[in-house]
Amino acid sequence: MTGPRYTKLAQSLPANVPFVGPEVQERDMGKPFRARLGANESVFGPSPKAIEAMEQASHDIWKYADSTNFALKNALAEQIGGTPDNIVLGSGIDGLLGELVRLLIEPGDAVVTSDGAYPTFNYHVVGFGGALHKVPFKNDHEDIDALLDKAAEVDAKLIYLANPDNPMGSWHTGDVIKAALDRIPDGALLCLDEAYIEFAPEGTAPDVALDDPRVIRFRTFSKAYGMAGARVGYGFGHVDLIKNFDKIRNHFGMNRAAQDGALAALQDQEWLAHVQSEVARSKNRIAAIAQANGLSALPSATNFVTIDCGSDGAFAVAMVKALGELGVFVRMPFQAPQNRCIRISAGTDADLDVLEEALPKALAKVRGA
Amino acid sequence: MTGPRYTKLAQSLPANVPFVGPEVQERDMGKPFRARLGANESVFGPSPKAIEAMEQASHDIWKYADSTNFALKNALAEQIGGTPDNIVLGSGIDGLLGELVRLLIEPGDAVVTSDGAYPTFNYHVVGFGGALHKVPFKNDHEDIDALLDKAAEVDAKLIYLANPDNPMGSWHTGDVIKAALDRIPDGALLCLDEAYIEFAPEGTAPDVALDDPRVIRFRTFSKAYGMAGARVGYGFGHVDLIKNFDKIRNHFGMNRAAQDGALAALQDQEWLAHVQSEVARSKNRIAAIAQANGLSALPSATNFVTIDCGSDGAFAVAMVKALGELGVFVRMPFQAPQNRCIRISAGTDADLDVLEEALPKALAKVRGA
Repeated sequence: MTGPRYTKLAQSLPANVPFVGPEVQERDMGKPFRARLGANESVFGPSPKAIEAMEQASHDIWKYADSTNFALKNALAEQIGGTPDNIVLGSGIDGLLGELVRLLIEPGDAVVTSDGAYPTFNYHVVGFGGALHKVPFKNDHEDIDALLDKAAEVDAKLIYLANPDNPMGSWHTGDVIKAALDRIPDGALLCLDEAYIEFAPEGTAPDVALDDPRVIRFRTFSKAYGMAGARVGYGFGHVDLIKNFDKIRNHFGMNRAAQDGALAALQDQEWLAHVQSEVARSKNRIAAIAQANGLSALPSATNFVTIDCGSDGAFAVAMVKALGELGVFVRMPFQAPQNRCIRISAGTDADLDVLEEALPKALAKVRGA
Repeated sequence: MTGPRYTKLAQSLPANVPFVGPEVQERDMGKPFRARLGANESVFGPSPKAIEAMEQASHDIWKYADSTNFALKNALAEQIGGTPDNIVLGSGIDGLLGELVRLLIEPGDAVVTSDGAYPTFNYHVVGFGGALHKVPFKNDHEDIDALLDKAAEVDAKLIYLANPDNPMGSWHTGDVIKAALDRIPDGALLCLDEAYIEFAPEGTAPDVALDDPRVIRFRTFSKAYGMAGARVGYGFGHVDLIKNFDKIRNHFGMNRAAQDGALAALQDQEWLAHVQSEVARSKNRIAAIAQANGLSALPSATNFVTIDCGSDGAFAVAMVKALGELGVFVRMPFQAPQNRCIRISAGTDADLDVLEEALPKALAKVRGA
């Protein structure tokens, strides 16, 4: 008896994991983190109305969710000024990125992204056999000109850009993004990841027509809406592109309570404002803690602060480890020179008390090592 | 400006929807169904402990779920007598079928299933370019010999078999399934869908070693555990096969509350016994209602009853429509001669009161038409 015959592509793939989750680290350490500040989750939680909607929906969880996501798509359509046909729902932006890549990328097709940008996007591109072409960051920003030049050079089908950016927290203005659209090579699609857009300054979201065929935009309930564990992301763009997702998506794949919760969260813009305010306050304190320890915080249009540790990647790796041992879960950029930094998500006052106590100890330990 | 360049495969696909959900039908009708008996959901709901776990988890929904599904996989491993490495979690069996097909099927690869078996499996096979080969049912059972002969003939990489079967409710004994394994052609994998196994007679689940490389089995929390809207399914089999899912799955794709709820549901086997008993009682009453109207119920090892309407597909289509107009959501098999039947999920007493009232009216309407 032989085993299954995998595709050539599946045989070529590593058993890759884009991220190691905090629970895995906690089990390895044998103790829980005291401050969970590594995954850019929203410690301020979702709207109480969203929690109530999810609790209520738990009683109806025996029913499959509406496969067309009717209510949520209509509410989102109203917010973005389009129609439900402009919107596709998915299992977080992660799930939607996988579907987008599947629609466009055959083995060998060219895809352009920044070196050190979102690893889960890369995971999907590799998973469908795409050829990844990476350009460096420029001054801790994604380098739009370089992305576009590279896309033209390699005849890319897909260009990934996060705005604001993760892991650096930097951003471009909406006008810059809009101008970039006119330079996108024919036959390339811009995948604009706006996961953090609700934290960015006014004018960061570009004013682009929904029927522009050159771009698809992704947003999420995982960050500002505080529902990372629910898995609700959405994409929006030209109706023809959006319709293509119906060819491959898992139509009954959405959690019913998540869908109800997202709708309630969207309708509670007062809570969103509260979270935005708390995040801004927390980011200021993280920056102050960094400064008090002789480190500098980079400007951030997200719900995290990227801290320049003033040394190299090995130093930052040691800092992430030392902070982890002191109970503070943080992450860091993967690529030089961005990997001189560590990345700390906004936290509660209690979380930041822990950080304030741990940071000097971690620095002393790493410098003394 | 041109649009995106899709893969050849994506271009060839229809904007297919495996099923039209009841919510879509309700919006079309302008009124809700009075009895929701069409999707083999469990109207008896999940364990109250599962509801409590999901309610509780709603407060923590700001955290991503554990990407390794550690607690749930360990509990499942204990139940099936394996290790967590034998188990993969996914977004319902639907999601897992898509991942399995992706691992094995390249354009043109042969896949064997029964004509009229689970459409969502076919959807995924077509979605990855596989060549579907179908064999007819035999006496309202999936025809295992024909499936195996066809698999040998077309050099199939994948063979789909649901046991118990949906939409007919029929089943084979575990011994028959086990014997079939020895006839599986080299290089073919049996995809054994056991979504309804908890409703089947003792001995329906085959006694197969977990390290048998010829089969992967899928089970779900959507049916007997009453959590269809949560989207938690699992596959189990040889560790090498299971490990391959880690190459492509959406690692952080599981809803956190769903995961907690499934664990609580699994631990409440008393509730499962209650549901099994309620389903058995309900199925008896559905059969009696059918008989009182001159129709016959097929034997069922599932949570639904397939009713032979004693006529042809057109008649059954009209019956589904007439029942729908009377407020009863049911579905039916797609292929002749199984499409002489309609399929009614177990319901509450109140649901079956509605069915009892509607069935003679629907019959009169369709016969008088």
